[in-house]
Amino acid sequence: MFNVFGHTTSPFGISAWQSSGSIYDWSIDMIMDSEDNADRTTRSELPDPSDDKEEKRVLSAALDSFRQYRRAAHYNITHLRRQSFYALPSAQVELLSSPALSLPKKFDAVDEAIDSNADIAEAILAIGLPSFGFGSQDESWKGHATPGDLDKARSTIRQLYRDWSAQGLPERHAAFSPILSALQQHLPETISSERHKHRVLVPGAGLGRLVFDICAAGYSVEGNEISYHQLLASNYILNCVSEPGQHRLYPWALNFSNHHTSSDQLQSVVIPDIHPAATLEAAAEQLKTKVPYSERMSMTAGDFCVLYRQIEYTEAFNAVATCFFIDTAPNVISYMETIRSCLKPGGLWINLGPLLWHFESAPTPADRDKQRGRTSNKYTHSHADENVGIGEPGSFELSNEEVIALVESLGFEIVEHRLAQPTGYIQDPESMLQNVYRPVFWVARRK
Amino acid sequence: MFNVFGHTTSPFGISAWQSSGSIYDWSIDMIMDSEDNADRTTRSELPDPSDDKEEKRVLSAALDSFRQYRRAAHYNITHLRRQSFYALPSAQVELLSSPALSLPKKFDAVDEAIDSNADIAEAILAIGLPSFGFGSQDESWKGHATPGDLDKARSTIRQLYRDWSAQGLPERHAAFSPILSALQQHLPETISSERHKHRVLVPGAGLGRLVFDICAAGYSVEGNEISYHQLLASNYILNCVSEPGQHRLYPWALNFSNHHTSSDQLQSVVIPDIHPAATLEAAAEQLKTKVPYSERMSMTAGDFCVLYRQIEYTEAFNAVATCFFIDTAPNVISYMETIRSCLKPGGLWINLGPLLWHFESAPTPADRDKQRGRTSNKYTHSHADENVGIGEPGSFELSNEEVIALVESLGFEIVEHRLAQPTGYIQDPESMLQNVYRPVFWVARRK
Repeated sequence: MFNVFGHTTSPFGISAWQSSGSIYDWSIDMIMDSEDNADRTTRSELPDPSDDKEEKRVLSAALDSFRQYRRAAHYNITHLRRQSFYALPSAQVELLSSPALSLPKKFDAVDEAIDSNADIAEAILAIGLPSFGFGSQDESWKGHATPGDLDKARSTIRQLYRDWSAQGLPERHAAFSPILSALQQHLPETISSERHKHRVLVPGAGLGRLVFDICAAGYSVEGNEISYHQLLASNYILNCVSEPGQHRLYPWALNFSNHHTSSDQLQSVVIPDIHPAATLEAAAEQLKTKVPYSERMSMTAGDFCVLYRQIEYTEAFNAVATCFFIDTAPNVISYMETIRSCLKPGGLWINLGPLLWHFESAPTPADRDKQRGRTSNKYTHSHADENVGIGEPGSFELSNEEVIALVESLGFEIVEHRLAQPTGYIQDPESMLQNVYRPVFWVARRK
Repeated sequence: MFNVFGHTTSPFGISAWQSSGSIYDWSIDMIMDSEDNADRTTRSELPDPSDDKEEKRVLSAALDSFRQYRRAAHYNITHLRRQSFYALPSAQVELLSSPALSLPKKFDAVDEAIDSNADIAEAILAIGLPSFGFGSQDESWKGHATPGDLDKARSTIRQLYRDWSAQGLPERHAAFSPILSALQQHLPETISSERHKHRVLVPGAGLGRLVFDICAAGYSVEGNEISYHQLLASNYILNCVSEPGQHRLYPWALNFSNHHTSSDQLQSVVIPDIHPAATLEAAAEQLKTKVPYSERMSMTAGDFCVLYRQIEYTEAFNAVATCFFIDTAPNVISYMETIRSCLKPGGLWINLGPLLWHFESAPTPADRDKQRGRTSNKYTHSHADENVGIGEPGSFELSNEEVIALVESLGFEIVEHRLAQPTGYIQDPESMLQNVYRPVFWVARRK
């Protein structure tokens, strides 16, 4: 079993998660600590120390990549650019430095933007370290980040635009609204104060905004995420930010293409757009729900299939909401079977997304390893999991028509199926290049 | 000087270009053979044999990549996929082979599509070999293609969708119509039979459709292209295809993502949409132009800046049309200066495109080499050109506002500037992911 916080002898303490006044609790709480889940502890095989070692390496790499954000961005984005710039003939340097263009000033402004983004990365790190039991003297996590990890840190920081800025609302609205409407429409009718009786699972929870929105609507919701980068960032935003707009994010500053003006490149947003806890509290009051939000929201860490195929999750949820998720599967049948297994009979599977198969360009196991950014030849973080979850052998890609056929043949009835609203995904609305998804939306009911 | 067909002792004969009833002649004719251009021959430094060797390697790699299209696509696209598919548990293989999905049948259909595409690649090769003086017994060009060359062959074949299929018309219309209108609107007025007096240059001519369209409109036009892949393909389509719809192209067959149905993946188009020579002939008749199309259209091969900075091109053109081109520059000032130099005073620079700077992710010279797909540490194809053209040291990216400021400060007056119509670039209109450019369009006049 892949379980980040898998057993009590793990070097990664979880006290910080619990003592920080968390909005939501993490997998360890779901899996290990809640009394009514105690049986899981005993049924889960404890990872052996070598698993912990590999697990710790992956975690360390994620932590280290947030530490290196500042230096790596200054180096790759502005330092090398200045070098290239000053390698130009001096007349050109002069022309490009003139007031009409002022490239050196742009580089300076980008450096300031990098610093502002790096402040966020370091805030995530500062909370992440004690949360995972790293003491202030412990430097064992340093120096583990690969270039792939640095990329993930950069894209995670940028993703805060989508999930936690006011400017990201159109993207969230396009992706989340149909899901929230479907919960209300297709789950058994209930007054809002009783919605907590519906348990919803969100695989691929990312930075947690959909989980948060579903909680704010009154449901009980559990997110699941495999990426430490995302887990660290969502924990910080949800549990540790003290006020709306605490940070200024420059989502496009590191990209130099397709801008109409330099000020387009240097647009900034503040994050988060709201204070998560205060907003949930206000929402709960309005809903008159009897169960406080902190008991209606949780997050698990680990491989979706491995975790939710466990017997204790059998028929545990009233709904599963997959948003830009199913195409992350090398084997989408495993996702479907897992979703079916953890849904109650009559339960809903709500899906919205395109089919950008993440493993399309990786038809061999070695390529898949590379694509996952693994440096070892392990298929998942820990040794025990080589051939399970996303580490399973075999892969394939389907058209939407085929996905639907498969959903139906695996024990679901399609109750709604349509094109969703076109939307970008972390898309600068001013850019000369718009990557626009035209996702499908469908709702299936477990027979 | 970088000049593909640079001198008469070159192993790459050009007779085939001339004897094939070409619609347009190639650089060698422009630069070396026409009597009125004889002075160029003497002024151009002849490359030494080591240049030819490097040049031949690059050409051989391009030729070889068309030869390998079939085998590489069968291997990478279907063979490895079948392996991954049959590595699945047998119950899943059975399910996915059932009539609702029939993945093995899809793989077979993709193989057939690959074969149809490969027929085009091999037709390009079959014409390319004698054109470059390779005899039927000569196998010296085989085995040179790198994975990067194979990628270029794949994308060149796919690009035929945009330039030479009826279905590509919307993309061409969005990109080419404003350019053709601007020629009519801003060049000195003339009756259509006299348009040949206007000489137009198209840098980055690609597969030649804009060059062709400008010729069909009655102008004299010269394309320039550096890529052997593109040169070989455009030569084949323009000069050697015997009828419209001679080939069937499956532009999306090799991609497995974002399809609504498998038949979307297996959509096909025929190419070319028209017979180029017949169409030009008919157009010339209608225009009542006195100069036959074959004398109004030519193509040069080589680095744009290196070639057109030569003194013989000084003030040679009435207009330069850059379409999805200027962002290919590591140093766009060089492009601008070259354009200015080869434009007559009062001449037009018409530009349409986004600013997807091709060298953005390559801030160091080593990265730039890698991005260009060079295996050697040479900056251009031949040794003599290390620090000229796209091999120049230094690079930078600009916003559109900065590009405009630079154009103005380099001796141009902006006479029109607006957003162009949004358009895809080799975009499957059925796909769940639409990459949509919102290019800018502007016209500048050389002071």
